[in-house]
Amino acid sequence: MNRHLNLQTLFNPKGIAVIGASTHPGKFGFVALHNILSAGFKGNVYATNPKTPVILGIQTLDSVESIPEDSIDVAMICLGPQQAIAVLPELADKGVKAGFVVSGGFREVGSEGMELEKELIDTANAHGICIAGPNGQGFVSTPSKLCSQIVSPYPPKGKISIASQSGNILSTMLNLSRARNIGIARAISIGNQAQISVADYIRYFGEDSETEVVVAYVEGLPNGRDFFDSLSEISVDKPVIIVRGGTTSDGAKAASSHTGSMASDQKIFDTAVQQAGAILATDPNEAFEYAAAFATKPLPRGRKVIVVTTAGGWGVLTADAISQSNLNLMELPQDLEEQINEYLPPRWSKGNPVDLAGGETRDTIPTLIPLILAHPAVDSMIFMGLGVQGNVARSYLESPVATAETQRMANFHNAQEQRYAEAIVRASTDLRKPIFVSTELGIADQNNRGPKTLKDLGEACFDSPLSAVKALEAMTNFSVRENMG
Amino acid sequence: MNRHLNLQTLFNPKGIAVIGASTHPGKFGFVALHNILSAGFKGNVYATNPKTPVILGIQTLDSVESIPEDSIDVAMICLGPQQAIAVLPELADKGVKAGFVVSGGFREVGSEGMELEKELIDTANAHGICIAGPNGQGFVSTPSKLCSQIVSPYPPKGKISIASQSGNILSTMLNLSRARNIGIARAISIGNQAQISVADYIRYFGEDSETEVVVAYVEGLPNGRDFFDSLSEISVDKPVIIVRGGTTSDGAKAASSHTGSMASDQKIFDTAVQQAGAILATDPNEAFEYAAAFATKPLPRGRKVIVVTTAGGWGVLTADAISQSNLNLMELPQDLEEQINEYLPPRWSKGNPVDLAGGETRDTIPTLIPLILAHPAVDSMIFMGLGVQGNVARSYLESPVATAETQRMANFHNAQEQRYAEAIVRASTDLRKPIFVSTELGIADQNNRGPKTLKDLGEACFDSPLSAVKALEAMTNFSVRENMG
Repeated sequence: MNRHLNLQTLFNPKGIAVIGASTHPGKFGFVALHNILSAGFKGNVYATNPKTPVILGIQTLDSVESIPEDSIDVAMICLGPQQAIAVLPELADKGVKAGFVVSGGFREVGSEGMELEKELIDTANAHGICIAGPNGQGFVSTPSKLCSQIVSPYPPKGKISIASQSGNILSTMLNLSRARNIGIARAISIGNQAQISVADYIRYFGEDSETEVVVAYVEGLPNGRDFFDSLSEISVDKPVIIVRGGTTSDGAKAASSHTGSMASDQKIFDTAVQQAGAILATDPNEAFEYAAAFATKPLPRGRKVIVVTTAGGWGVLTADAISQSNLNLMELPQDLEEQINEYLPPRWSKGNPVDLAGGETRDTIPTLIPLILAHPAVDSMIFMGLGVQGNVARSYLESPVATAETQRMANFHNAQEQRYAEAIVRASTDLRKPIFVSTELGIADQNNRGPKTLKDLGEACFDSPLSAVKALEAMTNFSVRENMG
Repeated sequence: MNRHLNLQTLFNPKGIAVIGASTHPGKFGFVALHNILSAGFKGNVYATNPKTPVILGIQTLDSVESIPEDSIDVAMICLGPQQAIAVLPELADKGVKAGFVVSGGFREVGSEGMELEKELIDTANAHGICIAGPNGQGFVSTPSKLCSQIVSPYPPKGKISIASQSGNILSTMLNLSRARNIGIARAISIGNQAQISVADYIRYFGEDSETEVVVAYVEGLPNGRDFFDSLSEISVDKPVIIVRGGTTSDGAKAASSHTGSMASDQKIFDTAVQQAGAILATDPNEAFEYAAAFATKPLPRGRKVIVVTTAGGWGVLTADAISQSNLNLMELPQDLEEQINEYLPPRWSKGNPVDLAGGETRDTIPTLIPLILAHPAVDSMIFMGLGVQGNVARSYLESPVATAETQRMANFHNAQEQRYAEAIVRASTDLRKPIFVSTELGIADQNNRGPKTLKDLGEACFDSPLSAVKALEAMTNFSVRENMG
């Protein structure tokens, strides 16, 4: 069996059948069918149920045998363990190359389940079927408009692909994807990894033309060597971001890990991930921030960062965070300082951070951002100040003492926010250097025109100077290492 | 001059005058007046402008002299340095006890400004006026419905008070306050601290009956000894949370610090803060999370934490984070395990984390939360699972293939979310033990009924297991230390 080809089929099926569809809107066999129909999958969709009810407008079939010939190549199997095993030969007869087994009751319940899991995989192998799961919550493939993931929201289409050993942690990242408008290509809850391991998914994502960034959440590692090998292979071309659960003895106990993981192996794991060229993240939120940066921004060519801010305090905190990273808060070049002098009154900081100190006029920010970023010594920029005028606009628009003047000023501020955001995206795209915007308003006021424009343009925005610096450091480490290779 | 009495006046004035009100909606003298009127301050409001225009419906006065006798005790001074000094004697004649000087052009611009600053303070002292700033962005006092802060949104009323050496970092925290619905009592941009230092504000907040939690952002410390003394004095009764900018040499340079701070003094600073019994936060976002926890939750009596989750992965990450803190992921007591057995099918984790493993029925969560929290061995709880059903509800409500059944299910899920959130708040209040809810949906879907109900009830909610554990650790350290005293 060619696992790559089968995974290609799983994520890009011509047709999918929900085996064991349910009439109850709280059951997996209902939710899977609902999510497939709801996301608008364009291929054939069938559902089996022995009582042949109509579910969600679909007339179910009484058995796999009733599915039309050559209509499906993937099955979403929502049956108990024995039934899931029994149905595989019939599915193979129908041309199914890949199946996702949702049901639990396998290895995770002990020795009896272990037997069943072995039988499941032996049967699948004998019939050339690739099995995702069992005991997983489904998968997403936006290029196919396909969503069988049970706990997910369906995310926007994008370049990030995720393999997660926890369905709910996958759901966490899909929630963030939707909230941030940073899209997903493929996402899968990998379950027990009985046949297809996290390493297989990482390799598939590595070769998948729809994927530019790979994220994996792992707990136990049945084959650590193969996992680290997959990281080394794929990290040459694409960033691979790893979050691990169960790194402490309490965590490992919680994961019911059977791999003998101990608290003391955390450092070994971390070192091995980094030696393989992959990127470690502390938790799913941080992993998503890193992925969002890689998915939306050009790679920096070096470590020299310039910080531009409309206010002192943010610049101070950013300078502190850069000092504690392996980024370089570059000296402000003399020629650049002279150029900036032309646009600002004398009180600006005349150093890096470039603190505009409230000296900006209508065009200062859209003018200075590309001017500074274009300087050949500058590798990347962190910008803080987006959203401030939008905040004033809101205070005027919501004010009980509003006047025509405040209305006019609010409109002006909002238009400025949009100009700033557009200027940031344009400068970054034209000059192929990343600009990291940090503002708490991206979450604190999702209607603020500045961060909202960034979001509408599909650009990542960071909640704090610290998170911006960490994501920029991850990208720079990946890029600079790559250049050395 | 009794600084405490004067600060009491500043934050609770009978009347306030904006000195140097402007007709231009982009100028400080306009925005300050706008924000005072907009927030609904109930005392007297006057504004001076030599041309006596009508601004925002207020007829301005041509001078301070024209302000009615006994009508004001606080002034918001939006004038240049010389004018600000010149107006102080007239303000004193009108009974002004405290003023906020917005204008820059003092110490921060060099030796000439330093002279002006000295003259400002000598004049203020001679006339018994307490001066906040100069070079600050205003202040907020929700008990008085007062907002003169230039860059702020006006926050909801609450128990947190903030002194910040950066107006924009104050604004960051006010934005978070509004987004999270965790309220503020007093907030001030302390500017150059020419007369009133951060230590004075901390002491005032310490004695202020409206304040339960104190937050300070500091860069330079003109009098470090007095600062640490103020922390020691106030931390006995109230949590004091400190964020410092300029802890590295790059950051200190960015802060234009004249205090001789060096990168190497970060550890000394951190140790001194902790020895004083105060709490360190990495950045304003983390500081606000800590403050939100203290402001809304009862103090834990000890370090024993129980984790309750509807899904494995989150429990694993939380156990890892607890292992790396000085909290204690307690052994699940035998009697509690037996009690839980009565409500869950055999597959639940039978340990801590209590992983319900999808075994819950309609009443499991509202029943188990108070039952587990009530156990005498349990000091605090972290709960993960709020929002999951709300997520399904959204997917049904937004679905293009919705049916009466999915609509019914969505309504059920939403009602359940509300029940869970209400049960969490009730259990925590009744049993006087904190419950920390972690879900990314608090930010990722602000309409999700679970986290939204918490927010509407004024309860803090955390975005990740890591942030929940850190905030709980901060509270536990404060509480346990207190018990030892």
